[in-house]
Parts: sequence; C-alpha cells; structure tokens
Amino acid sequence: MKALEDKILKEGVVLPGNILKVTSFLNHRLDVDFLMEMGKEIARLFETEKPTKILTVETSGIAIAMAAAADMHLPVVFAKKHKSHNISGETLSAVVHSYTHGVDYTIVVNKEYISPDDRVLIVDDFLANGKALEGLIDIVGQAGAEVIGCSCAIEKGFQQGGDKLREKGIKVESLAIVESMSDDSLTFRK
Amino acid sequence: MKALEDKILKEGVVLPGNILKVTSFLNHRLDVDFLMEMGKEIARLFETEKPTKILTVETSGIAIAMAAAADMHLPVVFAKKHKSHNISGETLSAVVHSYTHGVDYTIVVNKEYISPDDRVLIVDDFLANGKALEGLIDIVGQAGAEVIGCSCAIEKGFQQGGDKLREKGIKVESLAIVESMSDDSLTFRK
Repeated sequence: MKALEDKILKEGVVLPGNILKVTSFLNHRLDVDFLMEMGKEIARLFETEKPTKILTVETSGIAIAMAAAADMHLPVVFAKKHKSHNISGETLSAVVHSYTHGVDYTIVVNKEYISPDDRVLIVDDFLANGKALEGLIDIVGQAGAEVIGCSCAIEKGFQQGGDKLREKGIKVESLAIVESMSDDSLTFRK
Repeated sequence: MKALEDKILKEGVVLPGNILKVTSFLNHRLDVDFLMEMGKEIARLFETEKPTKILTVETSGIAIAMAAAADMHLPVVFAKKHKSHNISGETLSAVVHSYTHGVDYTIVVNKEYISPDDRVLIVDDFLANGKALEGLIDIVGQAGAEVIGCSCAIEKGFQQGGDKLREKGIKVESLAIVESMSDDSLTFRK
C-alpha cells in the first residue's frame, strides 16, 4: 500500500533495536481516516476468502482490526495479554515471546467467542518474528476453527516471521513490508 | 440509546462487586457494526461542540473512540496505562485509582499529541466513579487544551462519577445509564 509506505517514510522513526516507531498514526495517536483506508485494503485482499471473524491481540491490534472489520461487517475478538499463566475458566490460550520486551506472556481468548465453523482472519499492527501471530493461529486451532489468512499493517521483512508463515502455506498480506532499516534509510520490499 | 439498553439486557451479565460484564460486544468480542452505530450517536451528541480530537485510554476505550472518530473524521489519542510512576520524556500523566482492580496506575500521553488549540472529546467504554475521566481531563488541562465533553458507552449512574462531572459543568453524555443492577434486575435512568 503505497500511501502507507509514504506515511512510514514521513512519520516513522527508527530506534535502536530494530524498533520502528509509528506512534503518530498507529500506536498511540490513531489517524482514524487513514486506518479506515488501511482496513478497506485488508478487506479487498481477503474478500475472496470469506472470513467470518477477525482475531487480533490487545492493544495496538484493535484499531486496525476494527477498521478492517467495519468494512467487512465482521465482529472482532481481541485476545487479552496476561503476565500470569494462571488463567481460569473456559479459555483458549497460548504463550508468546515478546521480542521487543524480552519476556513471555500469555494471550487468552474466551472459548465461546471462536466457534469451529469460524473462518478467522488474523489482523495485527506489526509482524516481526511472527510469535504473536503463531500464538493466535494456535488459539484458532484449539477452537477447531480455520485460519483463512493473516494481515498486518507493517511487516519487518528482515525478521522473517511473515515468510516462515507463508512457507507453511498461510496467506499473509502485509500493507507495507520493510526490507531494511537504519537511522538514515528505510527500504520496502517490491 | 435504546438499542444499547436492549443489548445490555440481552447480553450483559451482572457479577459480584457491581461488575457489568459486556464482553460479548464491547470488552473482548467487538460487535463492530453495533459499535459503529454507537459511534454515530456520539458524533450526533457532540456535533455542535466541534471537537478536533478524541482522547481515550487503553484498552477497552479504543474501539468505541475509534467508532466515534470514524464518523467525525477525527484522530484518536489513547492514553497508555503504566503501573510504574517513572515515565520519562515529554509526557503528560495522571494517577488514576481503579475501582475494579483496587490499584493505582498512571495514564500517560505524549505531549506532542495534544496541542493547546485542541477541542478534546473524551470517550471511554465505562463510566463508574469517574476516576479515569478525571485523569484524562487533568491531562487535557496540562496540555492547555479544552475538554468539550465526555461520552461513555455505559454509565453506572449509581456510582455518581458522571453526575459529579456534570455538576462541574462538563457535558457528559452516556449512551446508556444503569440506575440499579443486581443478579436478577437491571434498570436504566429515564
């Protein structure tokens, strides 16, 4: 999505540790009109797969998931993050390692919100090593439902998480794929 | 909003400690089409105040704030919650006491995302004792901007937070105001 690449070049800030800061439109301030355009693009990319539900994870995934869901008239379920592994009740959960924060956390979804006949589109803001998406895919599997694809706003192509999922045959569409980045340059995958 | 009252009666679950669980459409699963209708209603209620920005707090405020913002074509800023009081950098912050969890936390907004000429509409999912809204109002004040009003999806009228803000002259519009609730009955303010 050319408009997103332009926006990243204009507003993104590269920080040490391969962090791409896009708090001006995606992670703290939300450029809602622009997010709705991104949602429309995700809807276009996955229209033929006929998803019945969008799954994301709190916090930053909610806005982009909601934008896509608004265009597709679908419900969203957002997994909750828990530091504790003690989750009670009828839940589905997976342990995810956070590359950014260097810790493990558990993501949790109430069992009743994903049913075996769901065709789930997984949406998130960032895709780096793919650990969060793997956790969400695991949860969909536990529910006996089908993952019809994954869509992220920004993929860090150089961290290979997206390509590993594609190699497994999962349809992964990111709206912008950063191929390399440093203090003074940022390139996108063609 | 009659449709919201009906939905609360149909899907809401009252738990001990005055907790109203609406995870089926607002706090875990998001009924996005319905949220967009709620957003439209918030837009209608605050149209004449001409807000320039919507401020909310993560996590559950994001979806309803985004729905209102989509209709009004405004940006959203969501305050971040920190357990630590050590926030560095150019930030605005306020300490908020959580009634539900019985702890204090700090909410933080980057200074650059609220400017003195902003007319801020504060949006959140729940309004109970009003502590979260007070913290957000404090932050808007620190930025030198104006709060033009507050809108919440569900207000617990019996916890008085909304009425205290109204007594201060702040326009507070909740889409549904629960006047009383117990295991087997739930009434709304007329």
